[in-house]
Amino acid sequence: MPLTPEQLAEIAEARGETRPTLRATSPGMEAQLYIAHPVLDHGLVRVIDYMGDDAAITQAARVSYGRGTRAVSDDEGLIRYLMRHWHSTPFEMCEVKFHVKLPVFVARQWIRHRTASVNEYSARYSILDREFYIPAPDQLAAQSTVNNQGRGAVLEGAEAARVLDLLREDAMRSYDHYEAMLAQDGQQGLARELARMNLPASIYTQWYWKCDLHNLFHFLRLRADAHAQYEIRVYADTICRIVRDWVPLAYAAFADYRLGAVQLSARGAEALKRRLAGEVVTQESSGMSKGEWREFVAEWG
Amino acid sequence: MPLTPEQLAEIAEARGETRPTLRATSPGMEAQLYIAHPVLDHGLVRVIDYMGDDAAITQAARVSYGRGTRAVSDDEGLIRYLMRHWHSTPFEMCEVKFHVKLPVFVARQWIRHRTASVNEYSARYSILDREFYIPAPDQLAAQSTVNNQGRGAVLEGAEAARVLDLLREDAMRSYDHYEAMLAQDGQQGLARELARMNLPASIYTQWYWKCDLHNLFHFLRLRADAHAQYEIRVYADTICRIVRDWVPLAYAAFADYRLGAVQLSARGAEALKRRLAGEVVTQESSGMSKGEWREFVAEWG
Amino acid sequence: MPLTPEQLAEIAEARGETRPTLRATSPGMEAQLYIAHPVLDHGLVRVIDYMGDDAAITQAARVSYGRGTRAVSDDEGLIRYLMRHWHSTPFEMCEVKFHVKLPVFVARQWIRHRTASVNEYSARYSILDREFYIPAPDQLAAQSTVNNQGRGAVLEGAEAARVLDLLREDAMRSYDHYEAMLAQDGQQGLARELARMNLPASIYTQWYWKCDLHNLFHFLRLRADAHAQYEIRVYADTICRIVRDWVPLAYAAFADYRLGAVQLSARGAEALKRRLAGEVVTQESSGMSKGEWREFVAEWG
Amino acid sequence: MPLTPEQLAEIAEARGETRPTLRATSPGMEAQLYIAHPVLDHGLVRVIDYMGDDAAITQAARVSYGRGTRAVSDDEGLIRYLMRHWHSTPFEMCEVKFHVKLPVFVARQWIRHRTASVNEYSARYSILDREFYIPAPDQLAAQSTVNNQGRGAVLEGAEAARVLDLLREDAMRSYDHYEAMLAQDGQQGLARELARMNLPASIYTQWYWKCDLHNLFHFLRLRADAHAQYEIRVYADTICRIVRDWVPLAYAAFADYRLGAVQLSARGAEALKRRLAGEVVTQESSGMSKGEWREFVAEWG
Repeated sequence: MPLTPEQLAEIAEARGETRPTLRATSPGMEAQLYIAHPVLDHGLVRVIDYMGDDAAITQAARVSYGRGTRAVSDDEGLIRYLMRHWHSTPFEMCEVKFHVKLPVFVARQWIRHRTASVNEYSARYSILDREFYIPAPDQLAAQSTVNNQGRGAVLEGAEAARVLDLLREDAMRSYDHYEAMLAQDGQQGLARELARMNLPASIYTQWYWKCDLHNLFHFLRLRADAHAQYEIRVYADTICRIVRDWVPLAYAAFADYRLGAVQLSARGAEALKRRLAGEVVTQESSGMSKGEWREFVAEWG
Repeated sequence: MPLTPEQLAEIAEARGETRPTLRATSPGMEAQLYIAHPVLDHGLVRVIDYMGDDAAITQAARVSYGRGTRAVSDDEGLIRYLMRHWHSTPFEMCEVKFHVKLPVFVARQWIRHRTASVNEYSARYSILDREFYIPAPDQLAAQSTVNNQGRGAVLEGAEAARVLDLLREDAMRSYDHYEAMLAQDGQQGLARELARMNLPASIYTQWYWKCDLHNLFHFLRLRADAHAQYEIRVYADTICRIVRDWVPLAYAAFADYRLGAVQLSARGAEALKRRLAGEVVTQESSGMSKGEWREFVAEWG
Repeated sequence: MPLTPEQLAEIAEARGETRPTLRATSPGMEAQLYIAHPVLDHGLVRVIDYMGDDAAITQAARVSYGRGTRAVSDDEGLIRYLMRHWHSTPFEMCEVKFHVKLPVFVARQWIRHRTASVNEYSARYSILDREFYIPAPDQLAAQSTVNNQGRGAVLEGAEAARVLDLLREDAMRSYDHYEAMLAQDGQQGLARELARMNLPASIYTQWYWKCDLHNLFHFLRLRADAHAQYEIRVYADTICRIVRDWVPLAYAAFADYRLGAVQLSARGAEALKRRLAGEVVTQESSGMSKGEWREFVAEWG
Repeated sequence: MPLTPEQLAEIAEARGETRPTLRATSPGMEAQLYIAHPVLDHGLVRVIDYMGDDAAITQAARVSYGRGTRAVSDDEGLIRYLMRHWHSTPFEMCEVKFHVKLPVFVARQWIRHRTASVNEYSARYSILDREFYIPAPDQLAAQSTVNNQGRGAVLEGAEAARVLDLLREDAMRSYDHYEAMLAQDGQQGLARELARMNLPASIYTQWYWKCDLHNLFHFLRLRADAHAQYEIRVYADTICRIVRDWVPLAYAAFADYRLGAVQLSARGAEALKRRLAGEVVTQESSGMSKGEWREFVAEWG
């Protein structure tokens, strides 16, 4: 459980007092504000602030389209049109700020998304907590034998137990030594900016992460994808549910045109058209490589 | 006067209804929301939405500093510290969206600031209004004789009158012809995306422009500067006053450490230290070029 | 013809002298360096500098994949794999710098691509040339009657002649007055930063524009698209041909997976699968809106 | 020593063959290409590719200034002028790509600079090497007692020995267990994307990092600064020396106007002017806080 009673009280207090505003509000997002969604064994995601709603997207689009937009008067239709035709700038008009607690190896993947603002807990300045990610048994997976970058079957029995023991013991020992090096009783105590390097990538850090909706969708498309590592995907899945509450029309368009979409190469589209015309298409006649053909068949049979 | 009665009514309506929110609010910014600040002869700036306040900056900084921050407990002191030491990321945690109406030649300078989101009125899609920037008499300046990129004395008498006539007449004629080319009575009518190219850079356009506070400060430092062209500076000055109401502590730190700051090169700092020690420093002995020395003397006498 | 004999001589001189380098070179791009490709009536595109080649992409990818990549040893296969799976960062490892001369209304669309570096000819600082874009007869199109943002039939006869006359005369008159306002014989002369506002958006400007290959592909996908305005599309088409010479493998993958690709929404993919299974799918049973269905049928019959 | 004989042979081979190019070359940078500069105990920096030289900066600036620039005809003067007046875009016209080997905790600071392109060795895909950063004795520093974010005196004697033992032993044990978990003899072997989380932040990773000169200067200003952590500062210092060879005029301007510059707040400038006028200024009469005054006195006495 990632939250202390003090933290829960703080959240309750933050949610206890509303203020009047002239800004647009999203009822679905007001219901989310400050609430901690647990992720993994000690992680969390919660919304700290947001700006804009579905109407902010169409309002920005209508500045672009001016008088001409009378025809596209329906908000849902306009949002779907914008998403379908990659008119991405109106989606940048919404902004959200999350508080995220996450293992360092997940943070290292996450930070690769550059179009966002971040303030991370500084281990130069402060001492990290003794919290480490230890996979749940059903996520303790073997190396995939077909995908260099993926997981295979779940480990079982003695091997699983041994791995969990190693992860736990090394984490605890590293943290014990971290504390021992920092200690100032009877010694000077190592600088925090040095001592932290003894800690493994399974340790939890936290940050504030702020992003606009367009770039958030890009993040979600890549990280809520089946090829993303499980430990970041669960964060992306949690954020998907939050975004669905925040901007339901935009999220539905995103789900249809991005998350659930299928990209066909020129060769793939050609192959499908030949199939629709009744032709039998083979890898050879498609012009695709073996890898491409395998992925094509996985989708289209 | 840039606003129609309909537009004023729309603003009054938007300001007439408050909604409850659990988010942080800035009282100074709530007072600004939607209100149109006139700029130049037909331009305006108004706040459409915002996120965060002074406390959002220190809150983000304290995530970074964690437990270590007890010492820097004062918000004003922390914000000044962050600004002084170029810790810019906490300032990115505030966001603002403006509606701006501005001449095209000003828009062309403004858009050079890339770290922002923009939705501009599209003249491919819609027809532009007959509104052009005509300088007020006190801004009708001659080319500077010392600065290739600046203004000199104000034009007077016949020359001023002639310039104003040319600007007005060419603008009106271009717009007449724009309309004539677009007209569909008795002819097909030229495509809007082509007809617009007949319009001069003095025509007004409008956009939604969204930016975080750090990047807004960067914009303001460059555009509220005395070297910026007057026609963009008046927009920057207006935004400065809005930001002062929004985040008074951050704005005060910005005014002290950026807007009013003096940058000394290594050579300049050396020259000042020698002066403080009682030495007389000349251009030759300073190691500065003539241009640098001129700027140094302009600041320090 | 956009180039003077002096400019042609300058290009010939730049191409006359090779220097030895230890860097990777692209033979196809060396053949392109400095050469001016005419675009529109007075515009041009030419390569001023570049960095990297196809091998720079796979080299960067192999840093990522380390020892694991032995299996994907073929450069072409690896590049296609990266493009297919949206692994975009290796494509950022190539960079190119263009000199572009283009009408201002095209520059205004182009600059919306923010992930690039630009130095534009400054009309605050210098005087613009008397060069305006006047559409060729086959591009003098009427407003589309079905697409608010597009072109319809070509104008003919008297209407075409009238439009061309208006564009030409207004451009010439505006430029005459621009010169008259700037003139310093017998008067002070208006500041250049003000006088320029009298010039229409058809006037040519020029800039240096630098971009990495990933972001260039994004630009090309949007601007070489059939929905882009003709006047920017011809620039994108020219750049496509240059990029094909520079990085032939990456360009071929881009052509297959982006330029020629077909994006299917979840609903669209579902509809196609039902069709492949022999079912007749209608708009109603597809769940698509009329607009989406129209676009779907346009692609898939 | 970070390089194997194979790697040295590879570098020698890469440096053995020049190719002709029509591009601008920088002799100082050609001498740097591919050569590995050792940093820390196992790290390195080396230039893999570059684009542009000092002349590329002034060439881009002259596109901006057009005919107007005849007056600023000297390259050095123009570069110093651009740097002094924060005209940053011409510096973006140069680009450089480094291969860097660095400890993970340094990589985590480095990656905060978002305006750059990165391809990092993937520990999802590949197995990391057994290489860890162990501080040299003179860098084994105690926590600063005055700066929450800095180092104090060097540890000595038994405490130093104990710290070094802990760092070494924990690193070796973590790596032993990493290998044991990955091993596939007699067991399935844990997925690489999971096993890596057992490794401490002292482990070395490597990446290709590409950046333009303006953003590189920004990185260097922050990371070659005395307040930066030693372990990233040594990388920045190494890059400073490389950049000095690459673009000597731009680097000299950077050293004078950024690295060695002194920023004065409005209050600080006021205080200095009063001092120059012979007045004795105290903290109270300066309007500065204690912290600001301390920093002011540290610079100005």
